[in-house]
Amino acid sequence: MIYDFSFQNPTRIHFGKTALTHLADELKEYGTQVLLVYGKSSIKKNGLYDQITATLAAAGKTVCELPGINSNPRYSQVLQGCELVRRHHVDLILAVGGGSVIDCAKGISAGAYVEGDLWERYYQNQEPLSNPVVPVGAILTMAGTGSEMNSGSVITNEDLQLKIGRVFPLAEMSPKFAILNPELTYTVPRYQMVSGIFDTLSHLMEQYFSGDDDNTSDYLLEGVMKSLVHSALIAVEKPDDYEARSNLMWCATMGLNKILGLSKTQDWMVHQIEHQLGAYTDCAHGAGLAIITPSYFRYIYRDGLSKFVRFARMVWNVDDQGQGDEQIALEGISRLEQFIRELGLPQSLCEVGATVEMLPLIAKSTDQNYKARFGTSFGGYKLVEEKEIMAILNACLW
Amino acid sequence: MIYDFSFQNPTRIHFGKTALTHLADELKEYGTQVLLVYGKSSIKKNGLYDQITATLAAAGKTVCELPGINSNPRYSQVLQGCELVRRHHVDLILAVGGGSVIDCAKGISAGAYVEGDLWERYYQNQEPLSNPVVPVGAILTMAGTGSEMNSGSVITNEDLQLKIGRVFPLAEMSPKFAILNPELTYTVPRYQMVSGIFDTLSHLMEQYFSGDDDNTSDYLLEGVMKSLVHSALIAVEKPDDYEARSNLMWCATMGLNKILGLSKTQDWMVHQIEHQLGAYTDCAHGAGLAIITPSYFRYIYRDGLSKFVRFARMVWNVDDQGQGDEQIALEGISRLEQFIRELGLPQSLCEVGATVEMLPLIAKSTDQNYKARFGTSFGGYKLVEEKEIMAILNACLW
Repeated sequence: MIYDFSFQNPTRIHFGKTALTHLADELKEYGTQVLLVYGKSSIKKNGLYDQITATLAAAGKTVCELPGINSNPRYSQVLQGCELVRRHHVDLILAVGGGSVIDCAKGISAGAYVEGDLWERYYQNQEPLSNPVVPVGAILTMAGTGSEMNSGSVITNEDLQLKIGRVFPLAEMSPKFAILNPELTYTVPRYQMVSGIFDTLSHLMEQYFSGDDDNTSDYLLEGVMKSLVHSALIAVEKPDDYEARSNLMWCATMGLNKILGLSKTQDWMVHQIEHQLGAYTDCAHGAGLAIITPSYFRYIYRDGLSKFVRFARMVWNVDDQGQGDEQIALEGISRLEQFIRELGLPQSLCEVGATVEMLPLIAKSTDQNYKARFGTSFGGYKLVEEKEIMAILNACLW
Repeated sequence: MIYDFSFQNPTRIHFGKTALTHLADELKEYGTQVLLVYGKSSIKKNGLYDQITATLAAAGKTVCELPGINSNPRYSQVLQGCELVRRHHVDLILAVGGGSVIDCAKGISAGAYVEGDLWERYYQNQEPLSNPVVPVGAILTMAGTGSEMNSGSVITNEDLQLKIGRVFPLAEMSPKFAILNPELTYTVPRYQMVSGIFDTLSHLMEQYFSGDDDNTSDYLLEGVMKSLVHSALIAVEKPDDYEARSNLMWCATMGLNKILGLSKTQDWMVHQIEHQLGAYTDCAHGAGLAIITPSYFRYIYRDGLSKFVRFARMVWNVDDQGQGDEQIALEGISRLEQFIRELGLPQSLCEVGATVEMLPLIAKSTDQNYKARFGTSFGGYKLVEEKEIMAILNACLW
């Protein structure tokens, strides 16, 4: 733990089959005006919408709604939410859905009372948060992003063709409470479930692959990676296995509530590339990550060789009898690819609609965004700029 | 994650060489009256006392002091602190020291404005907290107990010869902030350092050894156990190895900030036995745990065999070529004993001053306390009552 840090994550988690019973108590802490943000029709089909609105009514809340949030939430939807918050003097934004819905709720929270242009200030220019925010609560229906216990918000500006993530201060923007019932994830379509699983794994790997120091956080990250892989292979066979789905949900929350990345420099290059892939193709986030990751790892592994060897041994149980470090590291990446195949995720960009013409645009905008956000093009182990990103994308096009 | 839970830990952590520079900012959130609680003279020798009092003075605070807190903090000292809080209308209790000092500060926080008898209500009878508490801040100088990021308080009532732990609500009693500079632990005497290391390992094992379910928390606990063992063996050779000491400090905090024990039934029998050993011998807590643990594990391992096999493989890298489960489990316990020897901790009760005459008294009072606290004598894997505790103690007497 050689790098200094400060950390506080105040989100109150209610986890398990009875989690929703805590909603009524949580609502007592807020005023009467609630903005309910959710996605497509699934929560109306499975009865969750009725349960929640009944609890809100019993608590004496007046509810306005922002439905139809996309899987890559749009900036235009954030602006609609901001308008609703101001018009109804909203006291609590209640997000019901997966990471996209919660990310959208955070954008609304930050943007409702911002002076000037929300996109320009908080996403494009990453300015410090300087206005009051509206409390956010979350009821999670999909596992993957970890947005339920962090302060991140990834928004797609469709006009500018930019998908940009913003990490607000954890203590201010993390949901005040998050309700996590793994049973709610049973009905998530398989493709979305495995995308969420890979998103979680990617979060763990983005935090893990940096540095050659001996850091307690790396041991924790390995633990969650192992649990995730184990439960994922059960859940793809049996989607209603409560133990597997509950582990996957908690792996996702732990995977990005920031406590496992402390004192790590971290990478996040794969996420940055995927964000621009998503901006151009609207592919599922986890699917995009699954395509890019092995290609990226083959490009950088020699520069972080000892960590890739450790990854192979600790996470994939690679038996290194008589093999050299390079072979062990590559065997670890091969096992990761095998896992991606077992999940049924795509392995090439063309499968998610990317074209040869898009690649230079994706590479250029990724490089610009990464530099704007981190001030450098150095990820976890290697300088990766526009032409390197092109090479990485080309290697996974077909 | 098959058992439902709610969780919130709001402590703000400042970690690293620059951690103390955050004290001035933290102090702004509280009124002018500060009670400074600390141990023996070490913080005056190493300059920490002067740094802290200078920061308090610069922040315009009026300070009263409660020095001399013992390594097993006494109830009489808690009562002295309560009196100081009431007399000076204290706004913040600032604990500077190890777990004993912070535990004492929490007792004062709970007890200053309690109606009736503090010991009887909150420790002996474990009644729900029903009065306002005084905010606690912590500056940590020893790693081990994890008290800096949890709501536990273990107090010894010398008149009653009882050492009882109380877990207050996490959101109410966890320190508001905790300042963790690993360099401050360099001067901790070796015996106290290794006692702290074993206390941390014991916390991890008490949470780990329960259930046969597949739980993400177990993977996390294994990760911290591995990191702890690795860094401990470096630190005993080189006490000023910053990386090792910083990992040990963070292992201790993570080891009992409660996030790694979620959805676990847990055990805590070894701690209960040690508390009464401590009440009779005043031995170092970690030393007592190191003596009792192997004896306890040999008594219960057949009832949790698969977990002990997993512990041997995952934490101690036991190579199980051709061995049966019992052999693998026992080999894991042997490796743990080897680790205890490498740390230089005692391995028999007589080394810490326990006598044959004490054992029945320790066994009886442990059984009573465990039942009073948990309502059963069933630990992680097995019913362990007075006569079983006697057998466990007898097995580690010499």
